[in-house]
Amino acid sequence: MVRRIPGQSTALLESSLAHTLKEIAEFLGGEVHGDDQVLIRGINSLADAGEGEISFYADRRYEEKLRETRASALLVARITDAFRGPQVVVARPALAHVKVAQLFASPHSRFPGISEKAIVHASSVIGQNPSIFPLVFVGEKAHIGDDVILYPGVFVGDGARIGNRTILFPNVTVMPGCLIGNEVLIHAGTVIGSDGFGFVREGPRNVKVPQLGIVQIDDQVEIGANNCIDRASMGKTWIKRGVKTDNLVHIAHSVVIGENTLIAAQTAVGGSAYIGRGVVIGGQVAISDHIRIEDGAMIGSQSGVAKSLGPGEIVSGSPAIPHRLWLRTSGIMPRLPEFNERLRKVEKKIEKLAARSINTETE
Amino acid sequence: MVRRIPGQSTALLESSLAHTLKEIAEFLGGEVHGDDQVLIRGINSLADAGEGEISFYADRRYEEKLRETRASALLVARITDAFRGPQVVVARPALAHVKVAQLFASPHSRFPGISEKAIVHASSVIGQNPSIFPLVFVGEKAHIGDDVILYPGVFVGDGARIGNRTILFPNVTVMPGCLIGNEVLIHAGTVIGSDGFGFVREGPRNVKVPQLGIVQIDDQVEIGANNCIDRASMGKTWIKRGVKTDNLVHIAHSVVIGENTLIAAQTAVGGSAYIGRGVVIGGQVAISDHIRIEDGAMIGSQSGVAKSLGPGEIVSGSPAIPHRLWLRTSGIMPRLPEFNERLRKVEKKIEKLAARSINTETE
Amino acid sequence: MVRRIPGQSTALLESSLAHTLKEIAEFLGGEVHGDDQVLIRGINSLADAGEGEISFYADRRYEEKLRETRASALLVARITDAFRGPQVVVARPALAHVKVAQLFASPHSRFPGISEKAIVHASSVIGQNPSIFPLVFVGEKAHIGDDVILYPGVFVGDGARIGNRTILFPNVTVMPGCLIGNEVLIHAGTVIGSDGFGFVREGPRNVKVPQLGIVQIDDQVEIGANNCIDRASMGKTWIKRGVKTDNLVHIAHSVVIGENTLIAAQTAVGGSAYIGRGVVIGGQVAISDHIRIEDGAMIGSQSGVAKSLGPGEIVSGSPAIPHRLWLRTSGIMPRLPEFNERLRKVEKKIEKLAARSINTETE
Repeated sequence: MVRRIPGQSTALLESSLAHTLKEIAEFLGGEVHGDDQVLIRGINSLADAGEGEISFYADRRYEEKLRETRASALLVARITDAFRGPQVVVARPALAHVKVAQLFASPHSRFPGISEKAIVHASSVIGQNPSIFPLVFVGEKAHIGDDVILYPGVFVGDGARIGNRTILFPNVTVMPGCLIGNEVLIHAGTVIGSDGFGFVREGPRNVKVPQLGIVQIDDQVEIGANNCIDRASMGKTWIKRGVKTDNLVHIAHSVVIGENTLIAAQTAVGGSAYIGRGVVIGGQVAISDHIRIEDGAMIGSQSGVAKSLGPGEIVSGSPAIPHRLWLRTSGIMPRLPEFNERLRKVEKKIEKLAARSINTETE
Repeated sequence: MVRRIPGQSTALLESSLAHTLKEIAEFLGGEVHGDDQVLIRGINSLADAGEGEISFYADRRYEEKLRETRASALLVARITDAFRGPQVVVARPALAHVKVAQLFASPHSRFPGISEKAIVHASSVIGQNPSIFPLVFVGEKAHIGDDVILYPGVFVGDGARIGNRTILFPNVTVMPGCLIGNEVLIHAGTVIGSDGFGFVREGPRNVKVPQLGIVQIDDQVEIGANNCIDRASMGKTWIKRGVKTDNLVHIAHSVVIGENTLIAAQTAVGGSAYIGRGVVIGGQVAISDHIRIEDGAMIGSQSGVAKSLGPGEIVSGSPAIPHRLWLRTSGIMPRLPEFNERLRKVEKKIEKLAARSINTETE
Repeated sequence: MVRRIPGQSTALLESSLAHTLKEIAEFLGGEVHGDDQVLIRGINSLADAGEGEISFYADRRYEEKLRETRASALLVARITDAFRGPQVVVARPALAHVKVAQLFASPHSRFPGISEKAIVHASSVIGQNPSIFPLVFVGEKAHIGDDVILYPGVFVGDGARIGNRTILFPNVTVMPGCLIGNEVLIHAGTVIGSDGFGFVREGPRNVKVPQLGIVQIDDQVEIGANNCIDRASMGKTWIKRGVKTDNLVHIAHSVVIGENTLIAAQTAVGGSAYIGRGVVIGGQVAISDHIRIEDGAMIGSQSGVAKSLGPGEIVSGSPAIPHRLWLRTSGIMPRLPEFNERLRKVEKKIEKLAARSINTETE
């Protein structure tokens, strides 16, 4: 059993991996210009890359850094004179960089089997090739799929199910009955299946509405660190295939989020909201209870969305308005004191004109 | 010792519980119209309810779903023609639904006693009927009341006290000296008693102000997941009886929050702020240091409250203004570009009029 | 081995510590007016101080509380008639109060050595005088410095390094390869080194950009509870010496934060943003990707900063504008409905005047 240090910068760890530039170009389906026998041991940004590292140039904002980079080779969309070394021409350097990075990324640290210092209920079902670290808790009748990694501090409640090749990072809590799909990543400290925030007033007191539902997370979802995804009051809170959330995101009870939707950090989605496919939501956004955000909508950061949005709508601001209008409005906002002044002048002039006009009339 | 799967949807678990509609109506003090011998095994929303489940109709927004529901019975305020099955007439269907849901909710999973795999300091005092799971840590001279459940990953610091029938969900941290009352629920990942954010400048450096106080949480409080409630710099941060907070809420040092106040997700309450009873605070609100929010005030989501609020005041916006004014103001905001245009036209016309009027005068 | 109860209010715990007022004055370099033999056993706020406790008066907002305080002595900048007891005159009472508070603060609870119930990889290196509690996990080839405290639930990943005299509070996660300096405090539930939020579109799917970098945290940094600091995509996310963050702060991949910068609760810093030294950032602020905030800038709470800021710039609002302009603008905002009304009146009057002027001309 070999444990590898995961997610480690190639700059810090001497990696045994090395590929010729030719091999990398073939892997990407790209074309090398220059010496294709250069040995590549890692990938890094233009600013930080050094001897033996490949970098990429995909964004004009980095033109200055391109001139100064000490990378041994470059991924580019077309040959650039600003770099002297060998270049690999590919259709999309940003995507090519991801594929090369995957090549050099160390695999996640694994534990060989089920640790004796984990607490795994006898009635639970554990799949093939488990990696259950010490200090993990797996409850009654829980199901853990094949090739799953559960890091220390993970809690999997009674009756919960974790799909194949899914990773729960340290101190993740999956409350009872929740369903997590295949190839899901849930980052550290995140809570899946906490009670939704539901109360009914009875006099001055707030009576808790029992939260009887679950959370269902479909395949290939990635949930950031310290998120909270509440169980439904009834039925399920449902995060569909390919959704990605950043850190500290709140998803209330009975929410549905469609395929491949992206949610940036610290956003809150209110109870029973429905969000479609391929929606892009900025950071610190608030989405109200019970509204619908249709497929492909885009929401600027810090927006407050209180009304439903149609397919492909692009909004910003709190309350949210069409993004273009918001750009114009927020550009004018700082001129409000000037407006006040202009309005006052106009009023005075009119008074004068009115007085003069009366004079003229009465003359 | 029987462990039950907690918080589990009745749709997922075959529950052994079943009640006739007559029994449910008697329990609620309501009246059955139709067959009162129907057997009810669970409660669900109009959309999801099926054979053997009761649902409720309390909000006109769900009228369409009412027509389509496959529920076996309904809780209603008055008889509706849109549903063919038996109906139970009650004063408040929303409250009645809560009571029926409590009837069907499975109890929380318990551990029989104190796990040998928990770390419980010998000097701590543990009450009757404890449920202390493996991987729990209880520090020196801590007090744990009767019928308490501490889930895996819970940390109870030295000298902390946990009241009777209180539940700390997985990975909750209660720092030393903090006091938690009876029948309190603290959801997963929440931190009680972290240091307040207090520094005094000394040249360029920020010198830490030691945080000597504690957090006191009174009876029947419910704290959401991944909250942070800081200890007071001196004295106590005080969360009074019946307060409910949603997920990812931040409460700074020395704050006081009055009885039955509700705080939605991702709200931040600044240091030494005082919040009265029965206040309702939306999500992503920021409340400034040292201000007072009096009883019964209401604060719209994403508001920034920098000045104290009187009893029953209703505000929105950042900075916060009276809610009705905010509604009007934010409705006009998108018209700023139009205002600019109108103002420009007015200015031009006045110039023309002024020129004309001078011409008239000088003719 | 004596364990002391940490961070405990002196009001709650009988402390064995006591100092005469003379000793305290000498420690501070201040001058006593009145009885310098009074025995001081603790420090407290004006409102809560009692027999045997010293308090301080540094802010006029507390003048009323000064008159009512029952403290046995006072730290002041100049002698006040409003307090009858002995007073210690010091240059900066707020700073003096911090030093006296440090005198009375109980040290953090320690574990004598490395608990047998901690999981510490054989290949890790542990410094002098460790305090590694039960339920801690230390991975392969991790380095732990001297006098470090790791509380229960702490996870230190493979290859991570923790400096001397650093404290990781309960349930903190330090992911593999991350570097934490000396005298760093990381409060409970915080995650260091989670993956950055980076995806490249390939058709409808979002392909994960491997996050190969690390987080480096320099000496004397304090990170609040439930923060998330992401590892760099390449290279490092870098939190420099003396930075302090409040609770629930999000710092994205590849961010750099300069010395002694302060960040209040629930703020988000976007990917690759650069923040200089001595910057002060309010709560719930959003800072966009890739921008620069230069030294000494100040950002009001709830601001949305989408453009770079120069040294010492002070901004507020979303989008952020100069703070003074924002004060004026936000003061005028609630008058928008009134503006609308005034503009309409002006337009009507002009119409009348224009009509009249035509009449005058045609008469």
